[in-house]
Amino acid sequence: MITASTAPNIWDATLHEIATVLSPHGPLGPDGVTKLYAPSDFSIHFFLQLAVIIVTCRVVGWLGQKLLHQPQVVGEMIAGVILGPSLFGLFLPEVQGAIFPKEMKNVLYTGAQFGVGLYMFMVGTGFRADHFKSKGPSAMAVSLAGIAAPFALAILITPWLLTVPGLFTPGISRFNATLFMGACIALTAFPMLARIIHERGLSNSSLGTLTLTAGAFDDAVSWCVLAVVLATFGAGPGVAVLAIVGGISFALFVIFFGAKLLAPLGRMVEEKGEMSYTVLAIVMICFFLAAFVMDAVGIHAIFGGFILGTAMPRGKFVEELKKKVEPFAVIVLLPMFFTYSGLNTRMDMVNSWSMLLVALAILAASVAAKFGACYLAARATGEDNRTALGIGALMNSRGLMELIIINIGLQKGIIGLPLFAMLVMMAIITTVMASPIFEMVYGKKARESGELDAVPDNTTA
Amino acid sequence: MITASTAPNIWDATLHEIATVLSPHGPLGPDGVTKLYAPSDFSIHFFLQLAVIIVTCRVVGWLGQKLLHQPQVVGEMIAGVILGPSLFGLFLPEVQGAIFPKEMKNVLYTGAQFGVGLYMFMVGTGFRADHFKSKGPSAMAVSLAGIAAPFALAILITPWLLTVPGLFTPGISRFNATLFMGACIALTAFPMLARIIHERGLSNSSLGTLTLTAGAFDDAVSWCVLAVVLATFGAGPGVAVLAIVGGISFALFVIFFGAKLLAPLGRMVEEKGEMSYTVLAIVMICFFLAAFVMDAVGIHAIFGGFILGTAMPRGKFVEELKKKVEPFAVIVLLPMFFTYSGLNTRMDMVNSWSMLLVALAILAASVAAKFGACYLAARATGEDNRTALGIGALMNSRGLMELIIINIGLQKGIIGLPLFAMLVMMAIITTVMASPIFEMVYGKKARESGELDAVPDNTTA
Repeated sequence: MITASTAPNIWDATLHEIATVLSPHGPLGPDGVTKLYAPSDFSIHFFLQLAVIIVTCRVVGWLGQKLLHQPQVVGEMIAGVILGPSLFGLFLPEVQGAIFPKEMKNVLYTGAQFGVGLYMFMVGTGFRADHFKSKGPSAMAVSLAGIAAPFALAILITPWLLTVPGLFTPGISRFNATLFMGACIALTAFPMLARIIHERGLSNSSLGTLTLTAGAFDDAVSWCVLAVVLATFGAGPGVAVLAIVGGISFALFVIFFGAKLLAPLGRMVEEKGEMSYTVLAIVMICFFLAAFVMDAVGIHAIFGGFILGTAMPRGKFVEELKKKVEPFAVIVLLPMFFTYSGLNTRMDMVNSWSMLLVALAILAASVAAKFGACYLAARATGEDNRTALGIGALMNSRGLMELIIINIGLQKGIIGLPLFAMLVMMAIITTVMASPIFEMVYGKKARESGELDAVPDNTTA
Repeated sequence: MITASTAPNIWDATLHEIATVLSPHGPLGPDGVTKLYAPSDFSIHFFLQLAVIIVTCRVVGWLGQKLLHQPQVVGEMIAGVILGPSLFGLFLPEVQGAIFPKEMKNVLYTGAQFGVGLYMFMVGTGFRADHFKSKGPSAMAVSLAGIAAPFALAILITPWLLTVPGLFTPGISRFNATLFMGACIALTAFPMLARIIHERGLSNSSLGTLTLTAGAFDDAVSWCVLAVVLATFGAGPGVAVLAIVGGISFALFVIFFGAKLLAPLGRMVEEKGEMSYTVLAIVMICFFLAAFVMDAVGIHAIFGGFILGTAMPRGKFVEELKKKVEPFAVIVLLPMFFTYSGLNTRMDMVNSWSMLLVALAILAASVAAKFGACYLAARATGEDNRTALGIGALMNSRGLMELIIINIGLQKGIIGLPLFAMLVMMAIITTVMASPIFEMVYGKKARESGELDAVPDNTTA
């Protein structure tokens, strides 16, 4: 066998050349890793990375929209995987290594955390109590099915998953592993789903109210379960107490005093007709403090962001906040998260028939527990077939939310790289499934009435 | 003498306690530096830092506005110094060390570079050829005086500064040292000055056209001189060639093809009435590429940003871009720059009478070369005393621009920490001087006519 190192050809030499140019201040070793790393290289690499990241996310997102009628978020999820070791790193390891050197990982990580924290904060500002307004038997049934089935299936498959080495961190309790798997399966891409329903004018339809209620309920339960897992996992009892007491105190504080304390900000925006930089600065300070507190007690920054978001003033305030914060978060920060997640996605870890079997089992369980269970629950309580299918497809789509939870699992050492890769696949596939089915059920109708064309642009969730 | 380590008192113990809480995952050593540094600490610290940074910048900025009628930027410049070793680090070293651990410096650095790059990009988009419209003898005289006097004084004082150890990097040529000092003295806070003139409705007054023309001209010359210094300083001739050829090629490419290539983006915004995320993403990709290219060839990212900015479509496009990019840049990124700069500002380096003398000499030379020379040039060509004073004060104010140039000088190893600290003082003092003088000359008049109250809010430059 001829390897690159014994018989370098022009192609390899060219790649090495490119890699060297991309690391202007450090000669590359044969492993493609820079030998010298000056402080100013951080900004050089940062600018390069961001250019590559945004180009990839936008191009793949655009292709997904045009060719497969998928929302932008699907393309960006895939773009992250493409930039990682599963594709870019597999075929052009040297160039990939030069663009994403390990020294830069902390910067990318920080940007990614900032991005998802801010994203969950914005999700929180869009959270409304009337999402739970649908009180009929169907809504109750779908909500419960969407949480009971995932945890039932998690109880069923987790003991088996624990026997496969590398999926979970050694020493994790079966209880925590099961809860984590249940939360992963039960999660829905609630924000994406809310936007699709809103943009299609389905907010008052049976499908709309049902899915919003059930999605909000299931997600709330899943995140609470995750919080419990994070609070009790790993470190000693002192840490768990800090997490539980700290987390609950913070949540209670925001719930009882947050809205009242923040109300003046809303009035300032209403009076002025726009959000001044001073108000925006105060909001950002609150956000950073909330993220810090929930991160520091050992839960996670996203909870701080989300909980704070729910207490923010509504109306003009949120409208203005969205205008000022969302563009940057969606264009610059979230792609950093997708990439960071993709850099950790090692599809090569699913490299045997037995591992593939595990991956497929997880996928099947996830689809059965959300699509299947929610569809059946809707049918059983009297919804027609098309509505039930639409509900199932939307509830089954997990999008960015799933990436967030599994990244937390990986970062906190709950799951290993192989399970992470399998869950990334599950997240992408269940999200990809949603659009064609939903199109089939509702899209055509909407297009016939001239209401909409395909899937709305800029849907990131 | 009783030191904290031999006889810890309650105050010290409390501070240690605070510092420990702020580094939740690492027990602190007696030096206040965390012993363990887990990857997830990066986001925890990042959130904490940003909260502290934005609070400090906003509070000091607000105090500066209310008590001293200074623009926000002055407060933020001072806030950065306060957070650094000159004040916070001097009085509460342990707490400061816990909030700003050295491990986080690269993240802060990256955010800071991103911030100033984006800022200069926005300055570029506001750059208009008609800033050079004033062709009268006064404009010519003030422009030339504002560039000739600084370089003349630089030629005069640099040989002396080179004899003081530590001010410049050993081995720097007298030529480069002189050019750098000249550029530092000649620089004006052009963007701030343009905004003040625009907001006060002085754009068509003698003071307005004169200052805009002279400011734009002097800044253009200063940045070109800096580019030459960066291109020729340090590394071997190969690096200089790369910098010069790369820099000039990029600039020519943008000047000749940039506007034409980017024009479709402007039309898309005009047609849609707003900037879509796709257009914004393309703009950001161009920005990151431009910043990367100019950083990688060895000049600096800010040149990439600025040059690209000048080629961007105007009108609605810039308006929309500003709305989408500026809030984040001003509230989150620029404060990171002020802080990064402040962390490098060691006022304790100016710790002897001789060093203080050097600092005062630099300050005096700077004021004489800009305030003095521009005032005299304006008087000599027939402007009245008040107008000439106003011109002098505005031309003398250096603001954020000065911090950018001296941070580049420090980062590229042109100047040392003591000179950096002296130039920070010079930048702050000359900027602080501008408002009262300008107020005296123009502010009262404007207030009497009910046109404005004090200095406009949110002026960051």
